[in-house]
Amino acid sequence: MTSQKTIQCAVFGASGYSGVELSWLLHHHPQFTLSYGFTSGAREAEPVAALYPQLNDRCDLMLQPWQLDLLPQLAEQVQVAFLALPHEASAELAPKLIDAGIVVFDLSGAFRLSDPAQHEQAYGFVQPQFAHAIPYGLAEYTQLQGNEPLIAVPGCYPTAAGLALRPIADFLANGSTPIINAVSGVSGAGRKAQLHTGVCEVSLQAYGVASHRHQPEIAQSVGREVIFVPHLGNFKRGILATIYAELAAGVDAAAVQQALHAAYAEQPLVRVVAQPPKLQQVVGTPYCDIYAKVHGNHVIFSVAIDNLLKGAASQAVQLANQYFGLATTTGLLNRGAVL
Amino acid sequence: MTSQKTIQCAVFGASGYSGVELSWLLHHHPQFTLSYGFTSGAREAEPVAALYPQLNDRCDLMLQPWQLDLLPQLAEQVQVAFLALPHEASAELAPKLIDAGIVVFDLSGAFRLSDPAQHEQAYGFVQPQFAHAIPYGLAEYTQLQGNEPLIAVPGCYPTAAGLALRPIADFLANGSTPIINAVSGVSGAGRKAQLHTGVCEVSLQAYGVASHRHQPEIAQSVGREVIFVPHLGNFKRGILATIYAELAAGVDAAAVQQALHAAYAEQPLVRVVAQPPKLQQVVGTPYCDIYAKVHGNHVIFSVAIDNLLKGAASQAVQLANQYFGLATTTGLLNRGAVL
Amino acid sequence: MTSQKTIQCAVFGASGYSGVELSWLLHHHPQFTLSYGFTSGAREAEPVAALYPQLNDRCDLMLQPWQLDLLPQLAEQVQVAFLALPHEASAELAPKLIDAGIVVFDLSGAFRLSDPAQHEQAYGFVQPQFAHAIPYGLAEYTQLQGNEPLIAVPGCYPTAAGLALRPIADFLANGSTPIINAVSGVSGAGRKAQLHTGVCEVSLQAYGVASHRHQPEIAQSVGREVIFVPHLGNFKRGILATIYAELAAGVDAAAVQQALHAAYAEQPLVRVVAQPPKLQQVVGTPYCDIYAKVHGNHVIFSVAIDNLLKGAASQAVQLANQYFGLATTTGLLNRGAVL
Amino acid sequence: MTSQKTIQCAVFGASGYSGVELSWLLHHHPQFTLSYGFTSGAREAEPVAALYPQLNDRCDLMLQPWQLDLLPQLAEQVQVAFLALPHEASAELAPKLIDAGIVVFDLSGAFRLSDPAQHEQAYGFVQPQFAHAIPYGLAEYTQLQGNEPLIAVPGCYPTAAGLALRPIADFLANGSTPIINAVSGVSGAGRKAQLHTGVCEVSLQAYGVASHRHQPEIAQSVGREVIFVPHLGNFKRGILATIYAELAAGVDAAAVQQALHAAYAEQPLVRVVAQPPKLQQVVGTPYCDIYAKVHGNHVIFSVAIDNLLKGAASQAVQLANQYFGLATTTGLLNRGAVL
Repeated sequence: MTSQKTIQCAVFGASGYSGVELSWLLHHHPQFTLSYGFTSGAREAEPVAALYPQLNDRCDLMLQPWQLDLLPQLAEQVQVAFLALPHEASAELAPKLIDAGIVVFDLSGAFRLSDPAQHEQAYGFVQPQFAHAIPYGLAEYTQLQGNEPLIAVPGCYPTAAGLALRPIADFLANGSTPIINAVSGVSGAGRKAQLHTGVCEVSLQAYGVASHRHQPEIAQSVGREVIFVPHLGNFKRGILATIYAELAAGVDAAAVQQALHAAYAEQPLVRVVAQPPKLQQVVGTPYCDIYAKVHGNHVIFSVAIDNLLKGAASQAVQLANQYFGLATTTGLLNRGAVL
Repeated sequence: MTSQKTIQCAVFGASGYSGVELSWLLHHHPQFTLSYGFTSGAREAEPVAALYPQLNDRCDLMLQPWQLDLLPQLAEQVQVAFLALPHEASAELAPKLIDAGIVVFDLSGAFRLSDPAQHEQAYGFVQPQFAHAIPYGLAEYTQLQGNEPLIAVPGCYPTAAGLALRPIADFLANGSTPIINAVSGVSGAGRKAQLHTGVCEVSLQAYGVASHRHQPEIAQSVGREVIFVPHLGNFKRGILATIYAELAAGVDAAAVQQALHAAYAEQPLVRVVAQPPKLQQVVGTPYCDIYAKVHGNHVIFSVAIDNLLKGAASQAVQLANQYFGLATTTGLLNRGAVL
Repeated sequence: MTSQKTIQCAVFGASGYSGVELSWLLHHHPQFTLSYGFTSGAREAEPVAALYPQLNDRCDLMLQPWQLDLLPQLAEQVQVAFLALPHEASAELAPKLIDAGIVVFDLSGAFRLSDPAQHEQAYGFVQPQFAHAIPYGLAEYTQLQGNEPLIAVPGCYPTAAGLALRPIADFLANGSTPIINAVSGVSGAGRKAQLHTGVCEVSLQAYGVASHRHQPEIAQSVGREVIFVPHLGNFKRGILATIYAELAAGVDAAAVQQALHAAYAEQPLVRVVAQPPKLQQVVGTPYCDIYAKVHGNHVIFSVAIDNLLKGAASQAVQLANQYFGLATTTGLLNRGAVL
Repeated sequence: MTSQKTIQCAVFGASGYSGVELSWLLHHHPQFTLSYGFTSGAREAEPVAALYPQLNDRCDLMLQPWQLDLLPQLAEQVQVAFLALPHEASAELAPKLIDAGIVVFDLSGAFRLSDPAQHEQAYGFVQPQFAHAIPYGLAEYTQLQGNEPLIAVPGCYPTAAGLALRPIADFLANGSTPIINAVSGVSGAGRKAQLHTGVCEVSLQAYGVASHRHQPEIAQSVGREVIFVPHLGNFKRGILATIYAELAAGVDAAAVQQALHAAYAEQPLVRVVAQPPKLQQVVGTPYCDIYAKVHGNHVIFSVAIDNLLKGAASQAVQLANQYFGLATTTGLLNRGAVL
C-alpha cells in the first residue's frame, strides 16, 4: 500500500470525545491529512495532548479557536471538513463551508431529518435548506458519488437500530411498532462539566422515554414508527440496543438470518454474530455486531456498537472513504486492544 | 417499640449474597432471632465475618455446615427456615423441614411454578408435590394466614415485572405480549468462582434471550405470555426493568396512573415515582420504584429494585412479617447509605 | 432505650454528599431531631428527595436557602449546627452561629489548623480567631465536655492517617518521615458540575503530590512532618490509605500490635483487622479498619474508611454524641447493606 | 516500509489476557508471522474469536492444545516462541524449545531472578540452570545481540518500578529503602474462574504486603532493597505505581529531571510527563509514563503502564524487535482508541 496522505481535512469540535476520536483516526489514515483541529472560540490554541495526554508524543495536532476570518485560508488548504459540533453550530457553519467549496461531513443532528417540521420540533431551531438533497449517511446503505456537498452522519442510536432493522424491513407485521431499548455509555453526553455525568451520579437509568430526538430519526431510517427508550449506563463508551419487532405471518428464523447475512456478507464492518454481543467486543472498534433470534412471531435483536466510532467518528471516515473512492475500511481496522 | 426477639430462625445458604443479606436483616430484626446460618456441607464452621469482613464486630453469626442429623435439634429450636439454596437443594430439603414442623420461606425457583410440567422444563427436575397449595409470595399481592407450611418467594426479575404489570393487567390489549427488558447486576449470578462474572469479563450483554427460566414465572405472575430478555450489567446489585405493553383501546395515561396509585397507596415498599428511577435509588433498600409513561397505545414502565433485597432477602422478610402478623416493613427500613 | 428526639439540629450544606449523609444520620438518630437543612442561597426550597430520590417517602426534609435573617429564629429552635460548607463559608458563618448560642460542628477545613500562618498558606484566607481553643475532633482522641462552642471535625485523609499513626507515635524513628499514600473515591470532590469527576475522565491518578492541604493537618495530627500523596480512584466512596513509617530500633511487631489493640480495645468504631481491608468492608459504615504489618524496621498500615462517614458525617455525629454525653455509636450502627 | 512477515512465531498460553494481547500484536506486526497459538493441553482446538469475540473477522488464529510431540514440526517452522504461561510450565518447556533451536521470550517469573535461592523462595520450585546468562529484558536497559537463546521479560510491577528508579539509582541516599506503592487492574490476576476477581468481590485492597514475589525482582532490578506493597484495584487493566525514595544530600529537582530526560530522550516508549499520569492515558498503549516531583529530600514518582502491554506483551515484542534488529516500536504504535 502506498501511503500518500493527499486529502487535507479539518475537524471542528476536535476537543470533544467524538472529535478527538475523529482526529486520531485521520491522523493515522493513509490518505487523509489532518490539517486543522478547531475548538469553540473561547480557548487559546493548545496541543491536543494537553487535553488527552494519551496522545503525548503521538499526535502533534494543535487545537485552535475557530474564527470565521480563517475561512479563506481554510478553503485554500482543505477539501474536507468534519463537524463534531453542537447541532445549532453545525447548522450555522456548514453552509459557509459549502459555499467555500469544502465538502462537509456533519456529525450533528442538524441535517439528518428530511422533514423540516419534524426537525424543528426535535431540535428547536429551523433547519437550513439547500437546493440539493442531503444524503443520510448510514454507511452500509449509502453510495456516495463524490460530488455531494454535505453528508449527514447518522446518530449513534439510529445507526444501531437502522443496521438491525433495515434488512428485515419488509418482514415486519403491518402496523406493528418496533421497540428499541438501548443503553449508552456516558461519553454520549459529551465532554463538559456536568453534574449528571459524574461518577457519583451515574447509575443505570432510562431517560427521554419515548421522547428522545433520535426517535424520529430512527423512524425515518427504518421507514415506520418506533418506540425508543434510551438509557444511560455506568460505562464510558458503547451502545447496546435490544430491539423487539413483530414479524409478518410466515416469516421464520431462517428468513431473518438469510436477510441479515445477505445484507452484510459484503460489508466488512457489520458482523452478524451467533451469540448476543458484549459491549466490550465492539468498544474501540468500527464494527457493528448484530445478533438476531426469532421467538414466536417476534424477532429480537441484540446490537452493539461503539457510540464514538461506528456511532460517530469511524462512520464519518467510512463515508469519507466512500466519497473519495477508497475501500470502506481504509484507516479503520488495526485498532484497539483486545481486552 | 419493645424489642422482643422471640421468633427463632435459621438461614440455609447463609454464605451466598442473598443469604448474607437475609442474615443481616434478621440479625437486626426486632422480632426475629437468627439462631443458625448453614452453608453447604463441605465447609468448616467459620464466622460470617471471615467471608464478609464488613460484619466484623457487628454480627457474630457462625456459618456451619448443614447435616441432616441436626434436624431434630433444629426443629426444637427454630420456627422458621429461610432457604437461599440452589433450586435442587431446596426441593430436597424443604419437605424435610416442613415435616419437622418448621415453616419454610424458599428463595429458590423450586416451588414457584404451579404447573409441574413447566417447572420440569425450566429447571430440569421433578418438582416435589404437596397436598396443600404453595403461595407465590409476591408480597404486595399475598395475604399469608400464618399457617402455610411453605411459601415460594418470587424471583428477582418476576418481582420487578409483576409489581409493574399486575395493577394494569386488565388494561392490556387482547392478545398482546408485554416485553420485559431487564438488566441485572452481577450479584444475581451468585457467590462462586466463575469466569464470566470476573471484572475483566463482565460487559453489558443480553443472555437467555426469550429462554430464561424466569419467563414462565413472569407469565404466570402476570397471567399472560411475555417476552423476557435479561441482561448482565457491569455493576454489583440492582435490577432495572424496562417494560413495554400495549394498552386496550380507550385506556389513557390517567387510568394507568390511577391504577398504579390505587395499587400501591397503602403499600409502603412500592414507590410510584415521577421520573425514571436510577438503580442507585433502590440499591441497599427494600423498595420497588415504578415509573410509568403512556405513549400512544403503549405503556412503558421503568422499574428498579435491589435484586438481593426486594428481589430476594427483604421480600422474604416482608412475607415472614406478614406470616407472623407484623407490619410489613418491620426490620426493613432504616437501611442503607444515601449515596 | 427510650427514644426522645430532644436535641434539635440544623445542617448547613445539606445538599452535598457529606451533608446529605449527615442529614440521613440525624433523621434516624434517637436523640437528635433534624429541624433544618440549608443549602446555598441561590436555590428554591425543595425536598431533599428531589435531589436524592432514594429518600422518597423516607425523609421529608426540606432543603431551604439560608439567609442570615433566619438566624434569630434558628437560635430559638436549634442547639446544634453541623456545617458541611466550603471552607470560606464556614469561616464566615461559624462565628455568627456561636454568637447566637448554637454549638457548631464544622466539617470544613476552616478551623482545623492551629497555626494561623499555616492555615492561611493552605487555604488562602485568614482564619477567624477565637478566645477559646478549638478542639480538633479526631473522635477517638477527643473528650468533649459539652461546653465547647466550636469543634473542628477532621478531614477525611487526616482521619485515616491519624487513627493509624497516633497509637505508635512514640515508636517512630527519630527524624523519620511517615509516608501516606491514599486513594479516595470521587465523592470527596463534592457534588457539583465538574469535568474532572465525570465518568469518562476519572481514572486512577495522583494529585496534589506532597502539596495537598491535608498534609499540614496530618502533620499536626500526628505530631511530625509527613509526606502525603492523595489519589483519585474510579469509585464513589471510601478512602484506602497505605502508610509507611520507620520504627525506632527495638520496636517489634508485637509492640505495634499491642499498641494498636490497646488504643482501640474500647473504641467500638475502630477495628484492628488481621487482613488488609477492602474498601467495600467499610463503605456505608462508620468504621475505620486498620491493618498493620511490620517489615524490617518499617511498619506498613492499610487503613480504610468511608470518606463521607468516618471521614465526615458519622465522625461529626460521634463528636456530637460525645458532646451530649451519649454513647459514641448512638445512631451510627445498624447501617448499610452487606455487599 | 516493506512488510515482509518473514519471522515465524508461536505463542504459548495464547488464550490468557497477556497471551491474547501478544497474539494480536504479532498478528499485526509487519515482520512477524503468528503461526501458532497454543493453550494448555485440556482444550480442543478453537478459534481465538470464540473466546474473544472482538476478534471475529479480524484474527483467524486457531488456539490449539500443546503436546510435546508437536515439537519437531514446530522447530521446523518457527524461529521464536513467546511463553505466556504459569511459572512452572515455562520452567519446564523453555529448555525443550531452546534445545530445538527456538529462541524463547518468557513472560513468566521462571527466569527473572538471577539468584537461584531467591528464586526458589519466591516461586517454590528449583529454577532450571543454563550455561549461558539469561538477560533480564527491561527493554530500555537491554541490548540484545540476536544470539541469546532465552530472554526473561520483566514482571509488570518491576517494569514500572525499574523504569522510574534506574535513572536516579546513583542519587539515592545511602542505606535508604525506596517504597513502591502500586495498584494493578484485575487482568493481572489472569483469565480463570476465581472468586476474588469477581465484580462483587473486587474492591481496592492491598495484598502481599511486603511479601509479593515481585519484591526481590524489583530489588534486583534497581540494585537495592525496596519495600513493595501491591494493591488490587477495581479496573481491568493498568498499573499505577507511586514511588517514594530518599535522595542523597545535594541532589535537587533539576538533577532528577535531567537524569530522567537523559535516560529517555531517545526512548520512544517512555514518556516523561509534567503532570501525574492518569491510568487511562497508557491503557491500551505500549508506553510507560513517568512523573517525578522532588519534595524536601525525597523524590516521588507517579508511573503508569498497561500491565498487559508494557508490563507484558508489548515489552516482549519490543525485545523481539531488538533481537531481530528492528526499530523498538515496530508494530507497537498506531494502537488504541483515545478515550
